[in-house]
Amino acid sequence: MPATDRRPQSRPPTIRWVGGVEGYLEIIDQRKLPAEVTMLRLDTVEDVWQAIKTLAVRGAPAIGVAAAFGMVMAARTIEPTSQAAVLIETLTGRGAYLKSARPTAVNLEWAVDQMVRLAITERAVGVRRLQERLLAEAIAILDDDRKKCLAIGQHGASFITPNAGVLTHCNAGALATADHGTALAMLYEAQRRGVPFHVFVDETRPLLQGARLTAWELAASGVDATLICDNMAGMVMKQGKVNVAIVGADRIAANGDTANKIGTYSVAVLARAHKIPLLVAAPTSSFDLSLASGDLIPIEERHGDEITEGFGRRTAPASIKTYNPAFDVTPASLIHAIITERGIISPVNAESIRRVVDH
Amino acid sequence: MPATDRRPQSRPPTIRWVGGVEGYLEIIDQRKLPAEVTMLRLDTVEDVWQAIKTLAVRGAPAIGVAAAFGMVMAARTIEPTSQAAVLIETLTGRGAYLKSARPTAVNLEWAVDQMVRLAITERAVGVRRLQERLLAEAIAILDDDRKKCLAIGQHGASFITPNAGVLTHCNAGALATADHGTALAMLYEAQRRGVPFHVFVDETRPLLQGARLTAWELAASGVDATLICDNMAGMVMKQGKVNVAIVGADRIAANGDTANKIGTYSVAVLARAHKIPLLVAAPTSSFDLSLASGDLIPIEERHGDEITEGFGRRTAPASIKTYNPAFDVTPASLIHAIITERGIISPVNAESIRRVVDH
Repeated sequence: MPATDRRPQSRPPTIRWVGGVEGYLEIIDQRKLPAEVTMLRLDTVEDVWQAIKTLAVRGAPAIGVAAAFGMVMAARTIEPTSQAAVLIETLTGRGAYLKSARPTAVNLEWAVDQMVRLAITERAVGVRRLQERLLAEAIAILDDDRKKCLAIGQHGASFITPNAGVLTHCNAGALATADHGTALAMLYEAQRRGVPFHVFVDETRPLLQGARLTAWELAASGVDATLICDNMAGMVMKQGKVNVAIVGADRIAANGDTANKIGTYSVAVLARAHKIPLLVAAPTSSFDLSLASGDLIPIEERHGDEITEGFGRRTAPASIKTYNPAFDVTPASLIHAIITERGIISPVNAESIRRVVDH
Repeated sequence: MPATDRRPQSRPPTIRWVGGVEGYLEIIDQRKLPAEVTMLRLDTVEDVWQAIKTLAVRGAPAIGVAAAFGMVMAARTIEPTSQAAVLIETLTGRGAYLKSARPTAVNLEWAVDQMVRLAITERAVGVRRLQERLLAEAIAILDDDRKKCLAIGQHGASFITPNAGVLTHCNAGALATADHGTALAMLYEAQRRGVPFHVFVDETRPLLQGARLTAWELAASGVDATLICDNMAGMVMKQGKVNVAIVGADRIAANGDTANKIGTYSVAVLARAHKIPLLVAAPTSSFDLSLASGDLIPIEERHGDEITEGFGRRTAPASIKTYNPAFDVTPASLIHAIITERGIISPVNAESIRRVVDH
């Protein structure tokens, strides 16, 4: 267990690589939580694509890590005697395929591109060595994510004042990252420092990542938490029970506009109306400085069955139309601060972001 | 079929009385919608209490109507040879029991008190005649509700401008009243006038009255509608797709503060942030002028299972705490207008309300 791993015993690692270049990726199958803690073994690029697409692994940073290992699986299909150019071509093609699994989170793109860049830069060492270097890089990305999450927790923990009420949406926790989480890292760090606080967990329709994942991992870590429906957030804020709202991010534009799980924008508007600071917690790999504003972030739409057949049973008439965007965009003006592994960005604007992210 | 009944053939009456004093109440079992359209027969006060408590019948006006018939069932248990005082005492006791089924909607209280008042006023006619008079009164309350809903629709329809986007929360429709609905009456009237519009239906967690009931009755009436999760309302407002938000009411205080289904307050805050008028549609029987403000309205809390086992399957860890208020209170300051059967109250304040309601 690396020094940065502080998991409670009841929670297996979200994602880990077993063995060498011919090894496999093991992830918690998040579709089965909280009823079952089942580990899923991924051996091929198709396995990884499928796991990302069906949300067996989800959360922007964790998707990035999984994709990096997917690239290792792509690389090892190339004969060691082939030219490096063949490997690079394969990585480029399979990378595009991996990126197609989910369009909104930039970390997926980022990790794929990082792996291709490495292969190009180090092409001279030949295919066999490149395969090893790619595995080492994927492992570094995983370790790095864990360290970044710890750093986010350390930078952000001071926002959790004694007896604070915290509202969180979706799961920006250990399950969304290599470990510790982004938004939840701040809570785990506050807990480690002995600060008492209470968390309201938005269940996060339609896929209930709050109820299924955040509630589960907070319980496993002994954090005091209450589950509410998304539409109750306004009421608990009005009752004065919330001092700070914390969410993760799937992609942050150059001006600070932030795409995150659907419902985040509503939380942001409600928080502003109640003078509650909204914090976004994300590694710098979640920024996409190529996009001037959030209007340019692609928003994934998912199948309406997620709304009408929540969990195996139809709860709406067959004839009803649905609209199911998986993400929304919160304008920078509603965000009090963005907490990154490099420090706190506040106020949030193109200037302050460039200073921290672009170096 | 009374002239005020404009139901599509595919939708049975929400609530109707069959026979004379010894007859029975027949309701659509709303717990089974939309999978099954099952009629439920209620013969005793206990049946009515149970139907209200378990939401087989729900919606403030419909609960009031059901309770009025529950009082007929209480009255007919008294021997015709008994003194009127015995009947009045029974009505008072059984009325208190009926009121205990759900605390927030004032219509339940209102209907029970109305029936007791009638029995007291007309006690001289004796028990047998009183039983008949009480049945006639309950039927009058039902007919009256239907007419009030039509009138609400007529007063409010002008808010539905051509090609308007309408957002609604929970079910303030035909299923929540004797017929036509309150909020939805405005839509049915606009449809009758040939005005094209589109409705976004909040699914309304935890019990999905939007997905199960509003989607079903709008579909039965041929209204163009799209189902969304509650946490998507902010996004569709931001996209400019919503021109007006319309909800019902369970109890309106003297100053206009309005208790309605949980999540209404969040809709109100979001609507204000997007400069979208929020309309509350309710008969004057939903006002409680004895309460100066919404802080005094009792808010029912329901079992956490509605959140954690919403879909017939447990979707949250067993150890998680829950908070499940069935209603919230929207301050008058966030309400553009209240549409009653007597006309439109706008701006909403104690003065304007007293002028319309208190006469």
